[in-house]
Amino acid sequence: MDKMDNKRNDGRSNDQLRALSITRNFTKYAEGSVLIKTGATQVICNVSIENSVPYFLRGQNKGWLTAEYSLLPRSTHNRTVREAARGKISGRTKEIQRLIGRSLRSIIDLDKMGERTIWIDCDVIQADGGTRTASITGAYVALVDAVNYLIDKGELEESPLNSYLAATSVGIVDGELLLDLCYEEDSQAQVDMNVVMTGEGKIIEIQGTAEQNPFTRSEMTVLMDLAEKGIKELVLAQRESLEE
Amino acid sequence: MDKMDNKRNDGRSNDQLRALSITRNFTKYAEGSVLIKTGATQVICNVSIENSVPYFLRGQNKGWLTAEYSLLPRSTHNRTVREAARGKISGRTKEIQRLIGRSLRSIIDLDKMGERTIWIDCDVIQADGGTRTASITGAYVALVDAVNYLIDKGELEESPLNSYLAATSVGIVDGELLLDLCYEEDSQAQVDMNVVMTGEGKIIEIQGTAEQNPFTRSEMTVLMDLAEKGIKELVLAQRESLEE
Amino acid sequence: MDKMDNKRNDGRSNDQLRALSITRNFTKYAEGSVLIKTGATQVICNVSIENSVPYFLRGQNKGWLTAEYSLLPRSTHNRTVREAARGKISGRTKEIQRLIGRSLRSIIDLDKMGERTIWIDCDVIQADGGTRTASITGAYVALVDAVNYLIDKGELEESPLNSYLAATSVGIVDGELLLDLCYEEDSQAQVDMNVVMTGEGKIIEIQGTAEQNPFTRSEMTVLMDLAEKGIKELVLAQRESLEE
Amino acid sequence: MDKMDNKRNDGRSNDQLRALSITRNFTKYAEGSVLIKTGATQVICNVSIENSVPYFLRGQNKGWLTAEYSLLPRSTHNRTVREAARGKISGRTKEIQRLIGRSLRSIIDLDKMGERTIWIDCDVIQADGGTRTASITGAYVALVDAVNYLIDKGELEESPLNSYLAATSVGIVDGELLLDLCYEEDSQAQVDMNVVMTGEGKIIEIQGTAEQNPFTRSEMTVLMDLAEKGIKELVLAQRESLEE
Amino acid sequence: MDKMDNKRNDGRSNDQLRALSITRNFTKYAEGSVLIKTGATQVICNVSIENSVPYFLRGQNKGWLTAEYSLLPRSTHNRTVREAARGKISGRTKEIQRLIGRSLRSIIDLDKMGERTIWIDCDVIQADGGTRTASITGAYVALVDAVNYLIDKGELEESPLNSYLAATSVGIVDGELLLDLCYEEDSQAQVDMNVVMTGEGKIIEIQGTAEQNPFTRSEMTVLMDLAEKGIKELVLAQRESLEE
Amino acid sequence: MDKMDNKRNDGRSNDQLRALSITRNFTKYAEGSVLIKTGATQVICNVSIENSVPYFLRGQNKGWLTAEYSLLPRSTHNRTVREAARGKISGRTKEIQRLIGRSLRSIIDLDKMGERTIWIDCDVIQADGGTRTASITGAYVALVDAVNYLIDKGELEESPLNSYLAATSVGIVDGELLLDLCYEEDSQAQVDMNVVMTGEGKIIEIQGTAEQNPFTRSEMTVLMDLAEKGIKELVLAQRESLEE
Repeated sequence: MDKMDNKRNDGRSNDQLRALSITRNFTKYAEGSVLIKTGATQVICNVSIENSVPYFLRGQNKGWLTAEYSLLPRSTHNRTVREAARGKISGRTKEIQRLIGRSLRSIIDLDKMGERTIWIDCDVIQADGGTRTASITGAYVALVDAVNYLIDKGELEESPLNSYLAATSVGIVDGELLLDLCYEEDSQAQVDMNVVMTGEGKIIEIQGTAEQNPFTRSEMTVLMDLAEKGIKELVLAQRESLEE
Repeated sequence: MDKMDNKRNDGRSNDQLRALSITRNFTKYAEGSVLIKTGATQVICNVSIENSVPYFLRGQNKGWLTAEYSLLPRSTHNRTVREAARGKISGRTKEIQRLIGRSLRSIIDLDKMGERTIWIDCDVIQADGGTRTASITGAYVALVDAVNYLIDKGELEESPLNSYLAATSVGIVDGELLLDLCYEEDSQAQVDMNVVMTGEGKIIEIQGTAEQNPFTRSEMTVLMDLAEKGIKELVLAQRESLEE
Repeated sequence: MDKMDNKRNDGRSNDQLRALSITRNFTKYAEGSVLIKTGATQVICNVSIENSVPYFLRGQNKGWLTAEYSLLPRSTHNRTVREAARGKISGRTKEIQRLIGRSLRSIIDLDKMGERTIWIDCDVIQADGGTRTASITGAYVALVDAVNYLIDKGELEESPLNSYLAATSVGIVDGELLLDLCYEEDSQAQVDMNVVMTGEGKIIEIQGTAEQNPFTRSEMTVLMDLAEKGIKELVLAQRESLEE
Repeated sequence: MDKMDNKRNDGRSNDQLRALSITRNFTKYAEGSVLIKTGATQVICNVSIENSVPYFLRGQNKGWLTAEYSLLPRSTHNRTVREAARGKISGRTKEIQRLIGRSLRSIIDLDKMGERTIWIDCDVIQADGGTRTASITGAYVALVDAVNYLIDKGELEESPLNSYLAATSVGIVDGELLLDLCYEEDSQAQVDMNVVMTGEGKIIEIQGTAEQNPFTRSEMTVLMDLAEKGIKELVLAQRESLEE
Repeated sequence: MDKMDNKRNDGRSNDQLRALSITRNFTKYAEGSVLIKTGATQVICNVSIENSVPYFLRGQNKGWLTAEYSLLPRSTHNRTVREAARGKISGRTKEIQRLIGRSLRSIIDLDKMGERTIWIDCDVIQADGGTRTASITGAYVALVDAVNYLIDKGELEESPLNSYLAATSVGIVDGELLLDLCYEEDSQAQVDMNVVMTGEGKIIEIQGTAEQNPFTRSEMTVLMDLAEKGIKELVLAQRESLEE
Repeated sequence: MDKMDNKRNDGRSNDQLRALSITRNFTKYAEGSVLIKTGATQVICNVSIENSVPYFLRGQNKGWLTAEYSLLPRSTHNRTVREAARGKISGRTKEIQRLIGRSLRSIIDLDKMGERTIWIDCDVIQADGGTRTASITGAYVALVDAVNYLIDKGELEESPLNSYLAATSVGIVDGELLLDLCYEEDSQAQVDMNVVMTGEGKIIEIQGTAEQNPFTRSEMTVLMDLAEKGIKELVLAQRESLEE
């Protein structure tokens, strides 16, 4: 991307999402299993239901939800060392796991789940930017499937989910305010912001970072407008996928 | 805090910071050493200069800055297990360390530091909410002292620092939009947001989370106003401390 | 599988492989990338080329090849804990990693690779028995693609590969001697044997285990006949895939 | 070993075991304690009985058997780093521990052990090849002593052991097919195979590896003949030792 | 310290302690909290009471006391790597932790504590020699405060403490026998000895080391005289601090 | 040991060592290898010479000496968990390792060793009290053999050893002051003291601990007399062993 001209390197306009695809029932053992693709980014989002909760929650008749995230070693341009081989999980991975878990917990009523743990596993097959937001958007669909599985089996009476949930990134690259950054854009961004919103357009999480060029409050307003537009389109795609 | 009435439990108005104190030269070996107190929160911020850089930066004639953060075991209401005893650093600690390091890197020109590593150590003596933002605000002052120490010794010709930097938290508690949450407020907050800004009021970092109650974009605007007001006051206090 | 009758639970005859599919170029960054499916077992086999060797091999003008293996948490019937989360790699995983690496090293002339490391990453998406042998069979194809990539770029003059290589399992279940066990069969097997052979039918590795019912040398001869038959068919499929 | 001539470097014929010695009651606290020497290889095999089982087996009224293996740092020609100092157990050690445990479990009826754990500790004092097979052969004798100790104390009515059990290595070195490889032979072997058999000559485990020269099925038959001959002699020596 | 002359580098006589200060109630959450300064050495000693005991002590109606010790990274002349970052606790730290715990357990009757765990946390803010002995002397005072807190709340009827307890170092530097070594003296000492005594002058612990110059039994007698003198003065200071 | 009467439980007088045996050349690869037995305590002491030094000593033309210590799992009455399996070394082990290393470094002139590392490995085969002092006494003999090996090979011109070195324990049990405690005595001791001395009777290390009953300075004098008597006898036995 030597020069931005009027166009982004893949021809998108500044407020345009990448091509999106959501495949349900991607693997066969998980209670919910989704392969989400946004541009070249691909993430397997599996949801597992375990009939127990961590020690500190036992006997309270409520559920728990937790998320794990991992890059396959060659999901990236250069091979990334496996965290199991290092023997520890990086700070970046922990931050992403906490973000995914917190976001999904915000739209589920765990008091209605009984003593069950919901495991969200997001494994990135191919990473071209936006893996954490794709994970949230895909995991939401897999979570709906897992909850419906429990309802169909008669284990739950009603859905504990309160709302749709999706996420995207926005940022400032070369002075342009952009929606849904790919890796090449992200690696040059002056400002990088991840936004998680409900189906109603309310904010669940916002995380914005300016490594060298602080941004103004009016730039922030435009970035939030872009995020809101993108998330509305993602929620529409989730809805269509779930209706199939 | 059974009831908010018109007042916060320590009598502050909604847009009021806690009492602030900044003690420079708190310990004697570090190149910069600050004890910062904001209300009952107390953090020792030590800055160390090491005359080498990590392996991946050698030979590029530029510096590095990294931050570590830790709670003393009994800085908290109940004793927190020591991370050295667990043998690993929690996700929360890693997130905070990354936030502090990223924030301070955003206002320093590492190309002007030569091949030196700047270690920021934030050790919390007493934790009553806002330890990460107090760490950033205090570490900035210690960093100025460490940079001046190098200039005084003739090792640097000019300061690599571009701007003042301070941080605070804002949030929504019981429907009230508040500046600078103490622990009791933080633990009940529907929305919790940390903001890092330069002395000019530009945004470096914003991290907002709604665990159960998503918030509107207009609430977000008010929270940002509160943060901006608080950070201006913090920067003023930093300036006064550095002029002593 | 309450009863074996004359048929296996998926209708196969005793000497029949499961349905096989080999997809090349499955992901886009790896120098070789294969998705192999044998029945319900699915493994992504990525091959990465790194232009350096481990410390102990430097300056000898030869290459190195090493393999890593992992189960996605919900590749299994019940969720398997992530090894990165445990902080250590299980004995089972280490055995499999060593087997895959040793097998592939046996058919490559590392003296012809220059100072390069070949990383073999086998990540199991869905596990229904035979994941380690599917990993070897799939990784071989990805390795051919990675080697050809280097030849096409002019970095290697000739292929360092000496032979085809494939692997399968055989075993004794309920008294029947079977080829290519699925998970249900494997979990009830009295004898379980993994065999790795070259395209010429020579033996690279044989690992046979009888947890409770030791087996005779004549049973071993029949098991080897079954393995040889299966591996010939696998090599044929590799050849066809590579000719596409 | 510059040249093989007609003889092996220690003057043995190709189908000859090394000198064997089995010392029972080698240390005084273990329920079974054997020092086994095969040539210069020396292993202390201690068997301990613990009156409980791992969590996942409680309440099932059956026992458990597990094995651990370790090299003393200077059991080897050059000093080997202690795994406790590294903080993790190598893949090689894990493979050997699993092999020893699996082999001994194959000839014991754990349903007759009550809720007890049998710990097999194999600590190599001097390593000159064949340490894993010597561990199995020696541990079997120590296990018989530990079982008899329980019977003598009236804690078991009958022995849960079904059979004798011994192990040896075979291999191809410089084109010669050899029994019971010492370290010098093993380090040059084209093929290396470990075989575990019962007293009746049935196969419990077979693990054969060809790092560079794949072997034919007829070579494999000869290797198995050699192994069978050696194991018969080892079982005879175990029997004599136990009758003392 | 190029030359000792008749004086120590800070002007003290050979049998003189450094300036001592004991601040009680240093932080507000711990049941006992002391900041002790001996010369430039500063340690925060916090005592926490937990209403349970480790698993192996449950149901015995007795208490437990354990100690942890840590250096803040820049408590030292050069920055010390954080043990939490290394992922393990050094041998030196473990030795000190064990010494502090053992010393304090020697003057408390744990049978009178009920099923409670007493955590002693000694965190060194500034290290100029003698941190382990300052930790013991300071922790004793914090322990008295924590015990009195329990008595005041009616949770204990009488104090389980049997005696005063304090510690200091002695050593031989440049042929001189000295009391209470600072870092500069300690780093040049031929002999370094730590002594822990009760208020009655009885010995609890003695640890003496001569890295290169072994010492005579008569030198040892003089060192013990010095230690006894210093500890009497420390106990007097503890008593005065507790009477405030 | 319900009652002490006039005799110790093994019939020794209070100032009598246990039966001692020192076997040189116990294993064949180590440069020095000793099996030491004191009563039922048995330790293998191997000394290895490595032709390099740790990174921080390179280029200074001096050597390094370090010690490791380990209990075989069933050296103890009940099985001790292997530290490699725990993944970390206990505080007790680290203390002992540091003591052994420090003691042996005190009688060797490392400036005369060239850039070599001396590894002392003390592996306890059977533990009946006094394993750390037996390790020091045995390792000294193995160290002499390793040094002589280097002199014989012409790699060293003269011995870097300055003195003999041995160690023993003394203590107070049931009011009696005893030399060389066995495990049963040690586990009941009110005072336990380890003493390391040179062949000339000078003190290298003294470590005394009173868990519940502090001791007087006059008791300490008697304990030192006992230790001095025992160490003289141990040095005599070392001398005789080395003259064989």
